[in-house]
Amino acid sequence: MGSTFGHLFRITTFGESHGGGVGVVIDGCPPQLEISAEEIQVELDRRRPGQSKITTPRKEADTCEILSGVFEGKTLGTPIAILVRNKDTRPQDYDEMAQKYRPSHADATYDAKYGIRNWQGGGRSSARETIGRVAAGAIAKKILRQVANIEIIAYVKRIKDLEGIVDPNTVTLEQVESNIVRCPDGETATRMIELIEQTGRQGDSIGGVVECVARNVPKGLGEPVFDKLEADIAKAVMSLPASKGFEIGSGFAGTLLTGIEHNDEFYIDEQGEIRTVTNRSGGIQGGISNGENIILRVAFKPTATIRKEQKTVTREGEETLLAAKGRHDPCVLPRAVPMVDAMVALVLCDHLLRQQAQCKVL
Amino acid sequence: MGSTFGHLFRITTFGESHGGGVGVVIDGCPPQLEISAEEIQVELDRRRPGQSKITTPRKEADTCEILSGVFEGKTLGTPIAILVRNKDTRPQDYDEMAQKYRPSHADATYDAKYGIRNWQGGGRSSARETIGRVAAGAIAKKILRQVANIEIIAYVKRIKDLEGIVDPNTVTLEQVESNIVRCPDGETATRMIELIEQTGRQGDSIGGVVECVARNVPKGLGEPVFDKLEADIAKAVMSLPASKGFEIGSGFAGTLLTGIEHNDEFYIDEQGEIRTVTNRSGGIQGGISNGENIILRVAFKPTATIRKEQKTVTREGEETLLAAKGRHDPCVLPRAVPMVDAMVALVLCDHLLRQQAQCKVL
Amino acid sequence: MGSTFGHLFRITTFGESHGGGVGVVIDGCPPQLEISAEEIQVELDRRRPGQSKITTPRKEADTCEILSGVFEGKTLGTPIAILVRNKDTRPQDYDEMAQKYRPSHADATYDAKYGIRNWQGGGRSSARETIGRVAAGAIAKKILRQVANIEIIAYVKRIKDLEGIVDPNTVTLEQVESNIVRCPDGETATRMIELIEQTGRQGDSIGGVVECVARNVPKGLGEPVFDKLEADIAKAVMSLPASKGFEIGSGFAGTLLTGIEHNDEFYIDEQGEIRTVTNRSGGIQGGISNGENIILRVAFKPTATIRKEQKTVTREGEETLLAAKGRHDPCVLPRAVPMVDAMVALVLCDHLLRQQAQCKVL
Amino acid sequence: MGSTFGHLFRITTFGESHGGGVGVVIDGCPPQLEISAEEIQVELDRRRPGQSKITTPRKEADTCEILSGVFEGKTLGTPIAILVRNKDTRPQDYDEMAQKYRPSHADATYDAKYGIRNWQGGGRSSARETIGRVAAGAIAKKILRQVANIEIIAYVKRIKDLEGIVDPNTVTLEQVESNIVRCPDGETATRMIELIEQTGRQGDSIGGVVECVARNVPKGLGEPVFDKLEADIAKAVMSLPASKGFEIGSGFAGTLLTGIEHNDEFYIDEQGEIRTVTNRSGGIQGGISNGENIILRVAFKPTATIRKEQKTVTREGEETLLAAKGRHDPCVLPRAVPMVDAMVALVLCDHLLRQQAQCKVL
Repeated sequence: MGSTFGHLFRITTFGESHGGGVGVVIDGCPPQLEISAEEIQVELDRRRPGQSKITTPRKEADTCEILSGVFEGKTLGTPIAILVRNKDTRPQDYDEMAQKYRPSHADATYDAKYGIRNWQGGGRSSARETIGRVAAGAIAKKILRQVANIEIIAYVKRIKDLEGIVDPNTVTLEQVESNIVRCPDGETATRMIELIEQTGRQGDSIGGVVECVARNVPKGLGEPVFDKLEADIAKAVMSLPASKGFEIGSGFAGTLLTGIEHNDEFYIDEQGEIRTVTNRSGGIQGGISNGENIILRVAFKPTATIRKEQKTVTREGEETLLAAKGRHDPCVLPRAVPMVDAMVALVLCDHLLRQQAQCKVL
Repeated sequence: MGSTFGHLFRITTFGESHGGGVGVVIDGCPPQLEISAEEIQVELDRRRPGQSKITTPRKEADTCEILSGVFEGKTLGTPIAILVRNKDTRPQDYDEMAQKYRPSHADATYDAKYGIRNWQGGGRSSARETIGRVAAGAIAKKILRQVANIEIIAYVKRIKDLEGIVDPNTVTLEQVESNIVRCPDGETATRMIELIEQTGRQGDSIGGVVECVARNVPKGLGEPVFDKLEADIAKAVMSLPASKGFEIGSGFAGTLLTGIEHNDEFYIDEQGEIRTVTNRSGGIQGGISNGENIILRVAFKPTATIRKEQKTVTREGEETLLAAKGRHDPCVLPRAVPMVDAMVALVLCDHLLRQQAQCKVL
Repeated sequence: MGSTFGHLFRITTFGESHGGGVGVVIDGCPPQLEISAEEIQVELDRRRPGQSKITTPRKEADTCEILSGVFEGKTLGTPIAILVRNKDTRPQDYDEMAQKYRPSHADATYDAKYGIRNWQGGGRSSARETIGRVAAGAIAKKILRQVANIEIIAYVKRIKDLEGIVDPNTVTLEQVESNIVRCPDGETATRMIELIEQTGRQGDSIGGVVECVARNVPKGLGEPVFDKLEADIAKAVMSLPASKGFEIGSGFAGTLLTGIEHNDEFYIDEQGEIRTVTNRSGGIQGGISNGENIILRVAFKPTATIRKEQKTVTREGEETLLAAKGRHDPCVLPRAVPMVDAMVALVLCDHLLRQQAQCKVL
Repeated sequence: MGSTFGHLFRITTFGESHGGGVGVVIDGCPPQLEISAEEIQVELDRRRPGQSKITTPRKEADTCEILSGVFEGKTLGTPIAILVRNKDTRPQDYDEMAQKYRPSHADATYDAKYGIRNWQGGGRSSARETIGRVAAGAIAKKILRQVANIEIIAYVKRIKDLEGIVDPNTVTLEQVESNIVRCPDGETATRMIELIEQTGRQGDSIGGVVECVARNVPKGLGEPVFDKLEADIAKAVMSLPASKGFEIGSGFAGTLLTGIEHNDEFYIDEQGEIRTVTNRSGGIQGGISNGENIILRVAFKPTATIRKEQKTVTREGEETLLAAKGRHDPCVLPRAVPMVDAMVALVLCDHLLRQQAQCKVL
């Protein structure tokens, strides 16, 4: 029952990497929002494999169809179902994987849990599942923009040990999209691309860190004590394939400071608004947004599927060797960028509606 | 509506630091479990303020009462309500806080969200709320132990830049409890205690990292795609006061490795079980437990409330200065340890029941 | 996990008829609502046993305490916990019931489900559990009144075959409370009271029908397709002890009409509002309130616990005879009235917040 | 957010009567269940319009496609998405309805709630939405049959004032399907068919009562206090289009009996099982199944859309007249039968998993 996310703006994804298709049902979307398949497609294209020389070569247009919930270009308030058909399926690439578990992949655990799995291309554990998330995120982003001019921008902050210099307070989507690795620091981006290409040629893979900023978030979003804004964001991004860590604001580095060094002092700005001088809190205090930019980071491990030979076992419990054939994505980070900003958008949109429900009625 | 956690083993906490009391309602607990207030009290005592010279000096016995759900020493399967009365309330300590927002505390955001707050001692944002979590965690731990001999041990891994050397695979609860800072590396623990005392005398505070291991977790727990085990654990611990970061397995450091370096190769052990040679995955692959030890870390920032003077503002929007009077906890880490293991226990217990429901019925 | 009700205005009840107490946690209540224990007590007193000669003689003041969520007379937006201690416990009355299952009571099924039960006075299945519902309902009613002047009035429509003549469009709370059976038709009420007394003297029990009207409900509440307003109300009242049937608007009798006879024709009223000439729909069309009065009925069976001798069995599986000793409530209807209006209030309040969230944000 | 139903066996339906299609996502289905599109189609064909001379003449094959969650004929434990395309769309039939609200239909309330609606054929409020429910119900029924040989049979009990004589304890699916009105009492069925045809010719419509029995239900299903089995069933069936009332066991008629007349006395049967002599409880006591047959009834009003002329209003608030053109279903009852048994199956399946989770783990 783990395929639904959100309390009021609620999405349910479905689909395996092979089979009829993947998609999402969005329930709770406000009515009368103008939305088109084209707008959603823009985000899907950012997530699409084969979009550049450094991503997985799987070639699919991933064209989305809106099945329901939209009428004459506007949302109806009823569930929006979006479907993307699976097309480029090459089961022969996976014959070996029907028997051998890929190390650090989900093959073995799915079998242990369900006693059955769709071994073609990872089945449900494939990153292809995130198509539904990204489609829903496109709608969430539009609502956030329309209601409060909220903008959410994710980008590659680090690939292995190559770290870009990016100011989250000023970075633009254009800068993110200006290169294929999606690191707004162009110089570092060039070196990142080289490193990914070189790693790919070696049949190996690398990981890194995606950073994300949400700007113009109104004060008051987040629900103590369990549905704190950072807790829901943490769950959202830690549910993405290959994520291994999460930080908000100062994160792990903040543990090296003392209280007086870490605390964000308050001041009153020119508009009479309460603001903080620094933003080590990352825009959230006590689980509730404080009006400053929300800044977070997600660690992604190197992709599990590699072409280098590794020791593994078969379903039948025999030790063997495996070197993945066919497709191989040397670095998931560039495509993880639209996944991260989609997940953050979904959380913010859900909490915007929740805040509306509880605190705007009396 | 953010005060409920869990899908099948579901807890709802209530209470502010001041007022009638704090507590929890646990719904979905299996029937016929032997449980007593004394067993729960053991865990509450680990969380209790004033338990040692390095924690907050608030003096309360925090004695729990089981109001319902237990009959003749056994759970009934009906909701278990547990209440701890508030006793040591000194509102005069908080007079200033009724007007001035503590920097990096939840004072300002609660006011922004609700337009009202209980300014006595942090109200709902007080760590006192975690009493309900720890009480529920005691019951979850007992279920886990009874069903599958699962044991969950958290400990202080690092205070500021002092890092202990601890083997998560062998660490014992006795080692954790052998010193007041709850770092099983005794030598480092001594230095940590000194650092905390010194920081406290300066009116300042420090943070650090809590590490947690869950051993004997059966394969198969966790529900892709949103309720992955690490996603639910991330949410659980990121909902604790002062947490700023989360890692599972190799975490952020794992991003510096390549795929061939990071992947956990499989082998068949003497019992014929599929195991991994290394455990960079931290016991979870594809969101599902793989039978290896689950290992995670949580970053806690330095406590916001300090006695050093800081710039802040009043509710009325005037800039001012604040130095907290009265209580001051120089380091939350030792008391965060039982909070972390409680939250991890709650997640595992919930997923144990979920696995039972979906995958054991046919 | 069945002790929570509501999606946004969410209540969790706890407690058995014997043990520490019964109560409720309300999560999602809007902040800044003025509320006092006294206001809640008014509703609890309507539900209280021993309030008149025709109800169960259990004598308890059922005094409520607000443990959390209210500060200086106003709600904080955080969970409101309300506790009522159990006082008048006479376990000796139940000695026989520890062994013998009362026919048509929950004794046998609780044992079958949980393998354990609190046999004192019905445990969790006691109507005493509804204290938490009624307390929460008092708060829900205040919100509804404050936001949209919504008023909810339930009353006894029928006792056995004695049916009162009541106009739901004009009935007042004063009329309902003007006699102890809570039937606003005074003449019939007198005969109902006689019948209940006579039945009680015989050691037997009777049931009947409670009708409920909600007036001034704004158009637009209810969420197709599963959370239709009448579906959520049906669940709410069918979860009350002893309820056996539910009708909205024309109900079962409506099945005897043809479409042209049953349909509610539209017209435009003096204010330019779209209204219906008749109200066979009972104020809800397509699962959504249409602005007309919501009218519903609930059937309550005769109370199961009677003093007449019946055939039954013991826990150990032996056939035997049982005649309840001690307390015996000949007719639950008068006390069911505040339970029904509380449940309807909870549903309407929840849907008011839901409507606010989804349809008022853009 | 009202399009999801169930806690563990959880379905989300989507789709309007016009647009890309309708369907369902089923999350939480146990893995390794053999299921095929053909099996699901059997149930869809029972629900399909145009299947006989007495139902709506809309002609669609309603062929379902399983998009995900099934691999090589078996469920994967991942979400099962099922899609049925919309084909026979005649928007010209609805031109008038774009402006005029059909009396007692959902047209006006959808507009009041969302400010927009798909006026083609009822949009989301169309009975076409139940395709997703019936498809999911087919899977739920198979699980119930496989786990505990549970069988669920619904049938037409009454059409207007024509009531069939049917024994719920022995009725078979074959008897139900032996005539087009789905009333197992063949003689009465013939008169029902005549009455429906005659009513249809007059451009009018009629309603009635569907009865449903669930046999071989194990003891212990249902979760007090809010998720009582009859409460969840009540919500399930009251969420079906045109339903106006619900009864379990003795229902409204039971209110005319006294306690001694109504109570179901216990006895020990030949297998040593605790059983009840009578079954006025309808198989549920205290919200929990007691092992006897579960028997319930649902009242369906006459269909709102009729060809007779009625007074109504336009979106713009002008009074006018309306007589529906084109399609017109004189009686929804025969097609409501598979909807009712599907909804009951969904509730039982959900509670079977819930019981498995809470009460089978220790």
